[in-house]
Amino acid sequence: MQPGFVTPDNIAMLTDLYELTMAASYHEHRPDDRATFDLFVRKLPPHRSYLVFAGLEQAMFYLMHLSFSPDAIRYLRAMRLFPSSFLSYLKTVRFRGDIDAMPEGTVFFPHEPVLRVTGNIIEAQIVETLLLNTINLQSLIATKASRVVDAAAGRSVVEFGLRRAQGTDAGLKGARAAYLAGCAGTSNVLAGQLFGIPIFGTMAHSFVQSFPSELEAFRAFAKTFPSGTTLLIDTYDDVDGAQHAAIVARELARHGHRLGGVRLDSGDLIAVSRLVRRILDAQKLRDVTILASGNLTEYRIQEIVRRRAPIDAFGVGTELSVSADAPSLDIVYKLSEVVCGGTSMPTLKLSAGKQTYPGRKQVYRLERGQQFVGDILALNHEPVAGHPLLKPVMRKGRLVGPLPSLSSIRRHAAAERMRLPFKLRRLDEASLYPVLISPGLRRTARECRRRLLTGVGEPVEP
Amino acid sequence: MQPGFVTPDNIAMLTDLYELTMAASYHEHRPDDRATFDLFVRKLPPHRSYLVFAGLEQAMFYLMHLSFSPDAIRYLRAMRLFPSSFLSYLKTVRFRGDIDAMPEGTVFFPHEPVLRVTGNIIEAQIVETLLLNTINLQSLIATKASRVVDAAAGRSVVEFGLRRAQGTDAGLKGARAAYLAGCAGTSNVLAGQLFGIPIFGTMAHSFVQSFPSELEAFRAFAKTFPSGTTLLIDTYDDVDGAQHAAIVARELARHGHRLGGVRLDSGDLIAVSRLVRRILDAQKLRDVTILASGNLTEYRIQEIVRRRAPIDAFGVGTELSVSADAPSLDIVYKLSEVVCGGTSMPTLKLSAGKQTYPGRKQVYRLERGQQFVGDILALNHEPVAGHPLLKPVMRKGRLVGPLPSLSSIRRHAAAERMRLPFKLRRLDEASLYPVLISPGLRRTARECRRRLLTGVGEPVEP
Repeated sequence: MQPGFVTPDNIAMLTDLYELTMAASYHEHRPDDRATFDLFVRKLPPHRSYLVFAGLEQAMFYLMHLSFSPDAIRYLRAMRLFPSSFLSYLKTVRFRGDIDAMPEGTVFFPHEPVLRVTGNIIEAQIVETLLLNTINLQSLIATKASRVVDAAAGRSVVEFGLRRAQGTDAGLKGARAAYLAGCAGTSNVLAGQLFGIPIFGTMAHSFVQSFPSELEAFRAFAKTFPSGTTLLIDTYDDVDGAQHAAIVARELARHGHRLGGVRLDSGDLIAVSRLVRRILDAQKLRDVTILASGNLTEYRIQEIVRRRAPIDAFGVGTELSVSADAPSLDIVYKLSEVVCGGTSMPTLKLSAGKQTYPGRKQVYRLERGQQFVGDILALNHEPVAGHPLLKPVMRKGRLVGPLPSLSSIRRHAAAERMRLPFKLRRLDEASLYPVLISPGLRRTARECRRRLLTGVGEPVEP
Repeated sequence: MQPGFVTPDNIAMLTDLYELTMAASYHEHRPDDRATFDLFVRKLPPHRSYLVFAGLEQAMFYLMHLSFSPDAIRYLRAMRLFPSSFLSYLKTVRFRGDIDAMPEGTVFFPHEPVLRVTGNIIEAQIVETLLLNTINLQSLIATKASRVVDAAAGRSVVEFGLRRAQGTDAGLKGARAAYLAGCAGTSNVLAGQLFGIPIFGTMAHSFVQSFPSELEAFRAFAKTFPSGTTLLIDTYDDVDGAQHAAIVARELARHGHRLGGVRLDSGDLIAVSRLVRRILDAQKLRDVTILASGNLTEYRIQEIVRRRAPIDAFGVGTELSVSADAPSLDIVYKLSEVVCGGTSMPTLKLSAGKQTYPGRKQVYRLERGQQFVGDILALNHEPVAGHPLLKPVMRKGRLVGPLPSLSSIRRHAAAERMRLPFKLRRLDEASLYPVLISPGLRRTARECRRRLLTGVGEPVEP
């Protein structure tokens, strides 16, 4: 039986085989060269005008604990693929490189490095796959959550997606990313325990079904949780459900308790919420809230808000937790510079549709008042306007300082969203945010392309 | 710093809060009742005519190791939400129920339980979220992989998606699910180590870029891996790349080695593969294979195969690993029966668009020759035609026997696909497979609905 848990002990092996074959070849031919890699998104997913950076904390843990266990080395040796000198090297390898990154919660755009790795070329290569996996997942979900939260226009959004998230890690880190981007909390208990995220939960239809009648189910639940509980009222019929909830609310009130809310999970949420609100209000239950769930998207929530349906909070599951309309980012990790024997060489690739920018880079953000107006992608120390977004996070494998708390990241993400040009926050139509390429970077790219196309052993451009 | 690893110690907490609130209320009101839940998919995702069941092994590990740690209990106590008698119960709870399930690799259809849980109502409730998460992920990816493998019509498909899979668990279990459904292997080293899946890997563009010229990069790589290696030839220009690969192949041949293949990762794969094949053939390198990757889908692969492009194997990443066109299943876990005080009561829900079938059920499959022709959803021991798909897996919390090996599951999945009606294997257009509802199940549903709509405390249907 193989449960397949990813642990700090085996996570170094959660990588593509080619990272290790390349590493072995670097180890043979140029063990001391250094390299810089940029982690960035090539293009925006559909409907998106901006992205939210997330996952740095987990990525840094991975880098700080990277090591290959004796089991791992044994497995690799049995493949009869790798030179044994490389396997000896791998036994003791640690990540000792430098990381510069945007702070988590920062909004970013295509071609902007969100994380830059500089270090020994072998170390910088073998961490590629897991850095991509970690940043991809959390940035994807944070970006989606930002849209959903924006659509809710101040009403609460709770992440309910663990059951249909793509696996356990996506369930757990998705809750973190969703909270970071503005959700009020999650249904995920472990995310509550590990990350300190507020957790929410009501009841399922099965609970109601398991009792002879809905009213008995509500009474039983309210007896166990007399304060502030939420009843799910649409197992059989939502109007009857609202009436039963009202009965229980009055019974609770008689004992000094208060019903917290009711939840709707099916049907026409706008029409039904109005009906339910009227039933509750008629019974003087104005402070009993209505929570809606059931296949909600940012568009559906926007419509509900626009039509002023009396829904106080939204539970959003699958659509948020898999970023259903855009379930991956076009995220890549590209070599931008190699330093061999003290000589720095910027690099790029020319593959059809996959060109990259060479050299060690920085992203500068321009502001007018409180508003972001454009970014400049430039060489690292090129004197351009704006303030730099990539900050030192790690030097020689050690953190330069403590990472920010999740709640401060969450405040940063909220501030960032408010500073976006308003048209970038439209849900249906993507707008272009200006990302300019600096003169220095253009020049380096030109020179690099010329060198590649005329270099020794390389044919001239036809 | 919170790395957020899911471990056997904390996985019990990877659940929705409402599982625990419902459990607490059951614990107060009906601690000894028993229940049956069905895990099934309500409707097919777009373009799909069948689904492939996967994830049972990991789900069973979870059930066998379910337990709440002292840390978990401490966190729950600090919430000041749960009765302390429930927390005492939770300290020692184990899953002691019965599981019947389809064998992994079995094809299944909407409304068919793939897994049935019968046991104490509290235990059966608290395992809901994680069973859904586990079966959803692997069945989703196995179903997608089955389509991709079918499209490749005998050419190899290798799963390359770890970097953009939704998190570490999806990367690892996705590799398992893809292999189970017919992929030849994965790039994922940990999946190779833990599950014994063949692993494949070549080189990245960055490796080529890091050398002064492509030819030098190829020579360096071939020196480290002289036998059967694959060179990535499109970093700068694919025709030049093919010529450089041919040079290296001849150099290898002089030392008694053989170049394995070349990889294309961009551009018009059909046109370029023909060009590259001609270059290689002209150099008498007929046995050097061509591997293609880069945003491949089952449709793209079908087109490549139909147009007889000389591509021998496909590396499929993002599209497969997140099931991009259908990133979740409409998978649910529904109460179908409650036994209180020895009296069994079938249950269903009537919520708009979310009706379920009551009672403990079995799925029977009808065959003609080797072909599947239809299924019958029936009550557990109802005498109907066909052979039953749900088999005993666990009794009182213990496995009834060893689970099948991954390679035997893989053979079963391949056999299942061959036995599907051919029109169900079409990629573009979904076809309906007949799933009949047995007379006994219809009658139970009718009676159950009548009981609910006329029951004490329940209003009559308008």
